[in-house]
Amino acid sequence: MGFKYAKRIAYLKASEIREILKVTERPEIISFAGGLPAPELFPVDEIKEVNRIVLEESGHKALQYTTTEGYAPLRRWIANRMNTRLGTSFDPDNILITHGSQQALDLSGKVFLDEGDVVLCESPTYLAAISAFRAYGCNFMEVPTDHDGMIVDELEKLLQNTLNVKMIYVIPNFQNPTGRTWNYERRVQLAGLAMKYNVMVIEDNPYGELRFEGESLPSVKSFDTEGYVLCTGSFSKIFCPGYRIGWIAGDKEIIRKYVLVKQGTDLQCNTIAQMDITKYLELYDIDVHIAKIVETYRVRRNLAVNTMEILFPEGVTFTRPKGGLFSWVELPANINARDVLVKSLEKNVAFVPGGSFFPNGGKENTFRINFSNMPEDRIVEGLERLAEVLREFVK
Amino acid sequence: MGFKYAKRIAYLKASEIREILKVTERPEIISFAGGLPAPELFPVDEIKEVNRIVLEESGHKALQYTTTEGYAPLRRWIANRMNTRLGTSFDPDNILITHGSQQALDLSGKVFLDEGDVVLCESPTYLAAISAFRAYGCNFMEVPTDHDGMIVDELEKLLQNTLNVKMIYVIPNFQNPTGRTWNYERRVQLAGLAMKYNVMVIEDNPYGELRFEGESLPSVKSFDTEGYVLCTGSFSKIFCPGYRIGWIAGDKEIIRKYVLVKQGTDLQCNTIAQMDITKYLELYDIDVHIAKIVETYRVRRNLAVNTMEILFPEGVTFTRPKGGLFSWVELPANINARDVLVKSLEKNVAFVPGGSFFPNGGKENTFRINFSNMPEDRIVEGLERLAEVLREFVK
Repeated sequence: MGFKYAKRIAYLKASEIREILKVTERPEIISFAGGLPAPELFPVDEIKEVNRIVLEESGHKALQYTTTEGYAPLRRWIANRMNTRLGTSFDPDNILITHGSQQALDLSGKVFLDEGDVVLCESPTYLAAISAFRAYGCNFMEVPTDHDGMIVDELEKLLQNTLNVKMIYVIPNFQNPTGRTWNYERRVQLAGLAMKYNVMVIEDNPYGELRFEGESLPSVKSFDTEGYVLCTGSFSKIFCPGYRIGWIAGDKEIIRKYVLVKQGTDLQCNTIAQMDITKYLELYDIDVHIAKIVETYRVRRNLAVNTMEILFPEGVTFTRPKGGLFSWVELPANINARDVLVKSLEKNVAFVPGGSFFPNGGKENTFRINFSNMPEDRIVEGLERLAEVLREFVK
Repeated sequence: MGFKYAKRIAYLKASEIREILKVTERPEIISFAGGLPAPELFPVDEIKEVNRIVLEESGHKALQYTTTEGYAPLRRWIANRMNTRLGTSFDPDNILITHGSQQALDLSGKVFLDEGDVVLCESPTYLAAISAFRAYGCNFMEVPTDHDGMIVDELEKLLQNTLNVKMIYVIPNFQNPTGRTWNYERRVQLAGLAMKYNVMVIEDNPYGELRFEGESLPSVKSFDTEGYVLCTGSFSKIFCPGYRIGWIAGDKEIIRKYVLVKQGTDLQCNTIAQMDITKYLELYDIDVHIAKIVETYRVRRNLAVNTMEILFPEGVTFTRPKGGLFSWVELPANINARDVLVKSLEKNVAFVPGGSFFPNGGKENTFRINFSNMPEDRIVEGLERLAEVLREFVK
């Protein structure tokens, strides 16, 4: 007889991205698939230097167990940064360091979701958030979105008419997968609805610092006076993902519950990773580094969007994101992006079909393009090949 | 109105150890509380060197995302090591790298446990395993143990008479908290019962390499021919805990489920931590390093046991572990170790009261002593003070 798994195993499936990423390890592949940052921008020499200093100054501490909450100076930096950039008013006790912001999503599921609870999300939404929350047995209802974010009237209708809504999950800045950004008014309205209906909001913000144009907008959290909004953040896109350091920020009572849950989950994050990052922030100017990333990605976004504009056949539309890593492509309704991917891989070009970004299925005529990871010449080359493939499908 | 948490929040409580550890950060405290390795043995200079080499040779790769399964050369080393030491026959696909072996426990809960399932465990058992599994809504039944491990006849009675037993959780080597080690026969019997009753066994083995005397014994897994036993392991006690690198090993079909679950939980472990450890294993002889740890802890165990033997009042008993980090102390039945702790902290000596190691409560007349973390003079000084306190309670 077979092994008896938990029920959740039946409804989890492998991340399509992670599976495609395995293919894209072949060097001949031009990949628009992963959400990978540009590795040539990682501050390798600076990291070598800070690691040396941390081990020399406090090696025994850096290699030992530490508190579940995380390294205090790093929590202080994060609180200050969020207060300056996002209009929050946090102190270090509002911050829990997590193993990437993906763990912040998992812990959010663990802290809030019971089987049968409903999570409201943008349609489409981040694929691995769906996996994170689904493991706790929730159902999803997708809220229609337009170029300015969730359509708030539709959101309120769902809040009025749906039992067991426990959480609203959103990515207001350069959303994954669409690249769209919520406008100011929608942010105010979402915070208002969270308080009116006593529903938690998880405001996921891995890309917010990577704005190519326009003014930064305050966080949804900055309009929340009652503690219903929690924010995630990450060093993966502004520093490097290999360290797996992110965070969740919110009301102190709630953060204490997250700490409790993290204790049983993995005790704490990597001590030396936290100390290395803190030392980097102390010795170097991360804003100079972020400016370099932004400049590079802006060039790549321009190149990608312009190339698609010129070469993609009529009837194919795509977003022009103001920041972040992704553009979202929509094909005529009768074309399945998975079929396009098969043909595209024959030409060594990869992307992620859009269907998996809809928790309840549908919209197979969409796909996501990442423009941060490939150098300029390969972006053009790859989109040329992809355009050729698309012309076979769109007659 | 308050925030609406998941049901599990009501039955999780803060780890008593982690709370006591906060107190023990004060330098005047002589702590027998945590399961902390001796930091003076961490190979700080070697780690500085391997980190430099890894960043020079492959910085971009070391700081980038990688596969969920973990770094292939590290998985290969682990498979070989287990095959040599524990009598298993694994290859790299049997291994998933986890964020410490604590995460291996959390993922085990996530893969196997539904609400209402029963976990059978040693009485007492590792406190943070209780938290890890309880988050998935399971109930615990404690199996009586003696100096040779679980009493297998009692285990079989429970397997025959209990509905919904999904898992048996054991620590056969230098158990936390008792320091006890299972004999050969019990290992064979447990594997047999797992196969007979189709119940998963999680064989947790963070301390197995730290044997001070006697012969190493084969793992429970080595007697399992059907895949019901999964093994955890960790670099925390043989290298350093700050890196948070552990693993789970088992049947490939099952490990693929763990990978799936880990994707949604935190994507992957720290890339550079995995590469640093692998480089260390390539350039240095970890067996020389482990021998140094074993020698140090043997001296400390001898000192602790001898001091307790001489100074603790009659009626107080304790274990003489053949390896690992812990001894287990039992007081006369009418004495509550939490009261002893209060008095002991007044003399700046800390330990962990035993009550929390029993998932269903009870046995408050017990406590756990860690002997790995304090230098020799403080072990003696601390146990002298603790003996004084005990003499106030045991008349």
